[in-house]
Amino acid sequence: MEAPPYSSEGAEYPDSMLSRKFGREVVNYFSGSPLNRVSFLRSNTSFLRAALPASRFLLLRGLDPLASSKTNLGWVKYDSVSSLIGKPYDLDEEKTIEAFDSRVSAPTLIFLGLDEKATDSTFEYSGAGGNYKGQPFFALDVSPKEGELKEKLEKVAEEAVKEPGYEFRKVRIDLSLVPGDAAILAHARSLMDWNSRNQFCAACGGRTISVHAGTKRTCPPFDKAFQKSPNDASFERPPCVSRKGVHNIAFPRTDPTVIMAILNAAGTHLLLGRQRRWPPNFYSTLAGFCEPAESLEEAVRRETWEESGVRVGRVVIHSTQPWPYPNNLMIGAVGEALPDGEKIELNHDPELQDAQWFPIEKVKAALEAPQNGLHDAPPEGYKEGDLRLPPATAIAHQLMLAVANGFHLPSSEVAATAAKI
Amino acid sequence: MEAPPYSSEGAEYPDSMLSRKFGREVVNYFSGSPLNRVSFLRSNTSFLRAALPASRFLLLRGLDPLASSKTNLGWVKYDSVSSLIGKPYDLDEEKTIEAFDSRVSAPTLIFLGLDEKATDSTFEYSGAGGNYKGQPFFALDVSPKEGELKEKLEKVAEEAVKEPGYEFRKVRIDLSLVPGDAAILAHARSLMDWNSRNQFCAACGGRTISVHAGTKRTCPPFDKAFQKSPNDASFERPPCVSRKGVHNIAFPRTDPTVIMAILNAAGTHLLLGRQRRWPPNFYSTLAGFCEPAESLEEAVRRETWEESGVRVGRVVIHSTQPWPYPNNLMIGAVGEALPDGEKIELNHDPELQDAQWFPIEKVKAALEAPQNGLHDAPPEGYKEGDLRLPPATAIAHQLMLAVANGFHLPSSEVAATAAKI
Repeated sequence: MEAPPYSSEGAEYPDSMLSRKFGREVVNYFSGSPLNRVSFLRSNTSFLRAALPASRFLLLRGLDPLASSKTNLGWVKYDSVSSLIGKPYDLDEEKTIEAFDSRVSAPTLIFLGLDEKATDSTFEYSGAGGNYKGQPFFALDVSPKEGELKEKLEKVAEEAVKEPGYEFRKVRIDLSLVPGDAAILAHARSLMDWNSRNQFCAACGGRTISVHAGTKRTCPPFDKAFQKSPNDASFERPPCVSRKGVHNIAFPRTDPTVIMAILNAAGTHLLLGRQRRWPPNFYSTLAGFCEPAESLEEAVRRETWEESGVRVGRVVIHSTQPWPYPNNLMIGAVGEALPDGEKIELNHDPELQDAQWFPIEKVKAALEAPQNGLHDAPPEGYKEGDLRLPPATAIAHQLMLAVANGFHLPSSEVAATAAKI
Repeated sequence: MEAPPYSSEGAEYPDSMLSRKFGREVVNYFSGSPLNRVSFLRSNTSFLRAALPASRFLLLRGLDPLASSKTNLGWVKYDSVSSLIGKPYDLDEEKTIEAFDSRVSAPTLIFLGLDEKATDSTFEYSGAGGNYKGQPFFALDVSPKEGELKEKLEKVAEEAVKEPGYEFRKVRIDLSLVPGDAAILAHARSLMDWNSRNQFCAACGGRTISVHAGTKRTCPPFDKAFQKSPNDASFERPPCVSRKGVHNIAFPRTDPTVIMAILNAAGTHLLLGRQRRWPPNFYSTLAGFCEPAESLEEAVRRETWEESGVRVGRVVIHSTQPWPYPNNLMIGAVGEALPDGEKIELNHDPELQDAQWFPIEKVKAALEAPQNGLHDAPPEGYKEGDLRLPPATAIAHQLMLAVANGFHLPSSEVAATAAKI
């Protein structure tokens, strides 16, 4: 049983010290982006001005991305969007913040990064301590909106879908894209969602402004909407704690979650659970949000106990997966139950309808059979009553696969186990 | 060289499958909390009403916690705070939200959990599917405030420090508490900070209300401040997207950060860097924020390249550490440079003043010597020019220790390496 293609990028780094000891890195779906984010260039308006005309733009309408096919995102060029976006980087950031006017709308525009391997781009920027080459990518919000932008937004969205095969893809959880495009969608969608939900400052309630090319929202100290005359300089907003000291509210949030394959102490069984609304016989690993001031290992232990009553000892992190619905980072772990803590009790947190210890052999068999997602019909050849598991695009699948391949066993036994699969 | 006491809790689970393969779990400072958060009881007002009179309260004034000594937090009982907190759980949550009145102030009160090992508590609660025992703990904000609560807040804070040795502890980064108290402080401080910075809804700018015993802030649909007469039922607030669908803004945020010990491909040297404002010869592992839709492994590679120019291959997560300044979760990793990517270049992101490849032997020697924190004078016996590293309370130290102890080596070599230290 081989890992699917999108989880084999670790093959880029074969036979290294760490991969010999820990195995190759699993690159989960939604990660493995082809873009270099060059995050230090986001506040460099000279770079952004140069990049804009050479860029490709991913349009999102209500968070639905433009796609050119079932497996690929669709991109538009600068000419198609220039009248909508105007000249957002003509002023430097400080001046942009000073010129804030809450009556003026601008579409959210997010710099995603440079594809340094793109062969059809000649874009190059020197300055800021280096020479940076590659195809620049942006995400642009074209959600319908009332107000001054209404017509421009509609026009850009209408023109984009005139290209044959192009459409705004309405998919609840989008797992059919090629790996690189999945990573770019996750990146664009997370940031677009965050921008749309943070139009106001959580500390003072005032409107915020997008800076750092869509990756920060600041609470500006002035608002021209309150300027009484062209010479009036007293259009200050009330003081706000977010304008001083160390804080985080101006930056995009990412919510760490844990997802865990829990072994019994003997290493023969795996703990899986199911929610009431899932299709019959569909099970997966347990999961939950990491809480403030909890280590990930503690979060794994707490969530497992709350949902199943099982008490967990040693926890090891396996791999991670961004999950842009809306802004999660799933951190996959393997843990083992304490010998006297294996009893399943569902009474604490009523989140699961059922949880069971499954023999690893049975999990292995279900991983070898085809899988479909939670919202799909059972795959062809599925026999009523068989265990159904999430497909390989889910980190849950990768965790179960790792355990089936002997993640928890000494190297000598791993070779023997892997040969059997 | 032994790991310090607060990182040995893994000893609770000796000789298990995973610890034989991966080593014992490192429990970093600020983690390893003695409290069971019983998160599913936070919205259970019957439980909260029962727990309140039996609880101990950690007071925070401007985020400074009450402490009884240099190493321990100070706690007050219900009698000392009852007049300030009133009866916050008399209405169930739904009714509390319906009764929202933005003119009324309440001090932030956060349920932390139950200490099930406390021997001097007889508190017990049956219901909600189980029987829950232990000493309940809350955190309470007593920061000075204008308005109706002013005098009560001052009185509670003044009375608390009358206890001999008690004071509100003004420590920038508090690393001197006993491990359990450090974990509780991290928990209380993170949530208090989040509550204080999220008094307004980021989606609509309206005032928020604290629910789930201080662990959620909701945007209420009504506000009695807008009620025109006692019989007027039309005091609705404008619609807000945060009241429907899947979103995250109502929940506390935790910012995942990566911190990484990067080995060269030969496994002989470790990449360490320093910031300009650090004391002379003080170096540490590189670190940075994880971005939206980035796997942790990608974040390690991006941050390492941006800060040092070094290109990283395989990344393995080692352990994690909550860092409540204000709401970070540090995720510690070990990574290895690509053989052709070891050249240090500081020109991209000018965050570091210097970065160097240090021989592991030199790092080992500095870990064996005493360490002081970044803001302390060098430890006694320090020789001018010697490498200074962070103390064992920092995950950076634990990562370097893991590498010095052979984390990256096959088991046979680890035993030999560990014997030498």
